[in-house]
Amino acid sequence: MNFKLVFNILGFLLMLTGVFMLAGIPFSLYYNDDDILVLFLSGLGTALLGFITWLITLKNLEKEFSKREGYLIVTLGWFLMSVFGAFPFFFSGYFTSFTDAFFETVSGFTTTGASILSDVEVLPHGLLFWRSMTHWIGGMGIIVLSIAIMPLLGIGGMQLFQAEVAGPSKDKLHPRVKETAKRLWAIYVLFTGTETLLLLFGGMNLFDSLCHSFGTLATGGFSTKNQSVAYYNSPFIEYVIIIFMLIGGTNFSLHYLALKGKLFRYFKDSEFRFYFGLVIFLIISSSLFLIIYNNQSVESSFRDTAFSVISVISSTGFATVDYQKWAPFFSEVFLIMLLLGACAGSTSGGVKMIRYQLLLKNSLLELKRLIHPQAVIPVRQNGKVVQTEIIAKVGAFVLLYLFIFGIGSVILAITGLDSTSAMGSVAACLANIGPGLDVTGPVSNYSSVTDLGKWVLSFIMLLGRLEIFTILILFSPSLWKK
Amino acid sequence: MNFKLVFNILGFLLMLTGVFMLAGIPFSLYYNDDDILVLFLSGLGTALLGFITWLITLKNLEKEFSKREGYLIVTLGWFLMSVFGAFPFFFSGYFTSFTDAFFETVSGFTTTGASILSDVEVLPHGLLFWRSMTHWIGGMGIIVLSIAIMPLLGIGGMQLFQAEVAGPSKDKLHPRVKETAKRLWAIYVLFTGTETLLLLFGGMNLFDSLCHSFGTLATGGFSTKNQSVAYYNSPFIEYVIIIFMLIGGTNFSLHYLALKGKLFRYFKDSEFRFYFGLVIFLIISSSLFLIIYNNQSVESSFRDTAFSVISVISSTGFATVDYQKWAPFFSEVFLIMLLLGACAGSTSGGVKMIRYQLLLKNSLLELKRLIHPQAVIPVRQNGKVVQTEIIAKVGAFVLLYLFIFGIGSVILAITGLDSTSAMGSVAACLANIGPGLDVTGPVSNYSSVTDLGKWVLSFIMLLGRLEIFTILILFSPSLWKK
Repeated sequence: MNFKLVFNILGFLLMLTGVFMLAGIPFSLYYNDDDILVLFLSGLGTALLGFITWLITLKNLEKEFSKREGYLIVTLGWFLMSVFGAFPFFFSGYFTSFTDAFFETVSGFTTTGASILSDVEVLPHGLLFWRSMTHWIGGMGIIVLSIAIMPLLGIGGMQLFQAEVAGPSKDKLHPRVKETAKRLWAIYVLFTGTETLLLLFGGMNLFDSLCHSFGTLATGGFSTKNQSVAYYNSPFIEYVIIIFMLIGGTNFSLHYLALKGKLFRYFKDSEFRFYFGLVIFLIISSSLFLIIYNNQSVESSFRDTAFSVISVISSTGFATVDYQKWAPFFSEVFLIMLLLGACAGSTSGGVKMIRYQLLLKNSLLELKRLIHPQAVIPVRQNGKVVQTEIIAKVGAFVLLYLFIFGIGSVILAITGLDSTSAMGSVAACLANIGPGLDVTGPVSNYSSVTDLGKWVLSFIMLLGRLEIFTILILFSPSLWKK
Repeated sequence: MNFKLVFNILGFLLMLTGVFMLAGIPFSLYYNDDDILVLFLSGLGTALLGFITWLITLKNLEKEFSKREGYLIVTLGWFLMSVFGAFPFFFSGYFTSFTDAFFETVSGFTTTGASILSDVEVLPHGLLFWRSMTHWIGGMGIIVLSIAIMPLLGIGGMQLFQAEVAGPSKDKLHPRVKETAKRLWAIYVLFTGTETLLLLFGGMNLFDSLCHSFGTLATGGFSTKNQSVAYYNSPFIEYVIIIFMLIGGTNFSLHYLALKGKLFRYFKDSEFRFYFGLVIFLIISSSLFLIIYNNQSVESSFRDTAFSVISVISSTGFATVDYQKWAPFFSEVFLIMLLLGACAGSTSGGVKMIRYQLLLKNSLLELKRLIHPQAVIPVRQNGKVVQTEIIAKVGAFVLLYLFIFGIGSVILAITGLDSTSAMGSVAACLANIGPGLDVTGPVSNYSSVTDLGKWVLSFIMLLGRLEIFTILILFSPSLWKK
């Protein structure tokens, strides 16, 4: 293990984290808030520590990079950024314990959006900006991770996802990680800018527009208002956010190809069709229910269901209504949605559509295989044969995911949550959605969870964000053997 | 499709069903009950109809038998036996609708044990005996199905299970279905007889002893008392039932080998070790909780937890206590247990230990594979390499199982059940356990479920009992093509 390189890169990441922390200071100056000093000192301290670490590991640095280092850097990176990122929250005094500050920061960097704050509006603007910025940074990280790094590591069948989106070789995303990262980030920044402008146009101020755009594109979900997006009571703003949540949940490789003029690539991609189809199905069926049984108007039914469904499936977690109030059975419907996730290569969390799609195809083909046992009947995705090994890998991932969901739910239930809340919280944190059900539902927050529960959920958010294996592999003795 | 043969065998099965219906009449005569005529007429009618069907299809019968006929016979067999088996219940007037009578009979034949009766004790003895007998017949069917027929059909990786238990070729169970069936049934009858004697010794009368033995070995769970096994308030009886539920959940091939003197084969079998280990772990941890937090005595803690854990995991569903009252989080713990199931080749329902074991092994080996991508690291079971194809097949089964669990829970929630009850009912019916959680929990019954809900749950019980694919395959066009 090349620890020197690991520390070098971690130092660099902390340096960036520290610099980003300072970004909220102008807003605090403008609004005359009391968090300027704490942001300045935390940012400067973090950046300095990062710089020193980076500097002292720079001498005779071997840039040799294997998978082993990759796993360690990714996990430690997310963890350390969350620890240092929690400092401004903790030292500001607005958070009662480091547990709370850490939970909020992990929730930010993992683009979860689960909050322990009952009243976010008392927070000064600098802290609120940093809170939303952790989403945006996390989203940047995850796009590169899922499109450029994870396929190299081969986690949970991820090697498949890139090849497939890329299609014919001339379409291939630039193979070098750096180049790929730059392109994807350019798209990410472009979308964030566009959404900010549209929200400004819809009547939000600049501060809120930026924060909500960060939260949308990263499919995070932190809002600057206690009522989340419901506060603005503006159909225009809701539609803007609906569209950008949908975008955030889409594979960024497809956006890249679309921006190069290949707009039809979206619907040529099997996973996107599955994602889009499922979303449309859920919106229409839920809308019909609201129209017929709850006598809601057609437009507001469509808007409410579109917002809630896309918010959960894309793993954003913004709220405009309490869907559990539509009818009791929506708890059940949304619990299942909490376990889905949108497209691979997006900022969304969860299992991801493509994995379910592959396994579902495989399950249905199994019927054919039973009737024709001698025939080879492979799963195909975008017209290409998927190897059985990949199916087994995807199955291994999903099983482990559900296993963690089960164990986590039991632990949270032991800490005192009721069944639905326990399952909702774990599902929402594991899939990096944010709001769960009942006690931690869309109109509530995680403040009533015990400290133990918060630590467990923090770990679960990281597990989910880093596709489980990236973290678990660190506990495998084989990784540490020469 | 050789329909003549299908009808011939179905006719034979109905003939047997009719004859078995008459078995309870001696008890009704002895207790002077009012169900003698209805049992006699239903039994005779069913047997006659079966006999005629069998007779008219006997001429020029081609005994050619392919998988296609196999699937159809198994599914239609279980369905028709449930329809005809419901007649005595329906015509007796003790059941208010055919839906209820059918639900109770499907629940019997699938060895589920979910009941819609709030008061079973008003039922005459002949009907009660028939009710418990449906368990026993269902159990007989499932042993042969899972050990002799399903491996031939290759459902959900079942081809693996037999080979493995059989071990070296001299150990192999007799390959011919008839021979295998006879041997396994002999063991089944032997165990039923032994349990009956022990229960008699424990103070139960002959009628109750027989009925409870039927319910235990078939891992069914119908009792003749409203309070289930709690009624007898006898530790001895509870221990006897604990042991025989454990036996019912064990692969009957292992019992066969054990009775031939190879007692150690139990612990040489990897699935049995997994099953036994998990049961012991759950009993000890739950007992410790009861001893420490609920101040219960050591013996009664052990007995209560052993009974509840084994009752659920073996998919029996007898009850002595309401485990949801131990602490709220036990709802969560038992919900997960409802999704497990015991050993393949037993009368238990559910996913079965071996499938989880294989997938869990595969998930953990995935960590090794990520570190050594060039190495071939196969899953092994009982020392033998398991092909990736089998892992994928097992994964396909488990995914479909959980998919049906999810969809079923949503449907039951739509019919009006709360979240926990909906999930508990579907999990308990899909795994053929019986009692679910809350509204349909161990101290309650399914009478409050709507008619639609009962039909859905009946279908789910059949799906679970016949390992899903056996039924779904009938909807596959390839099956019906020449």
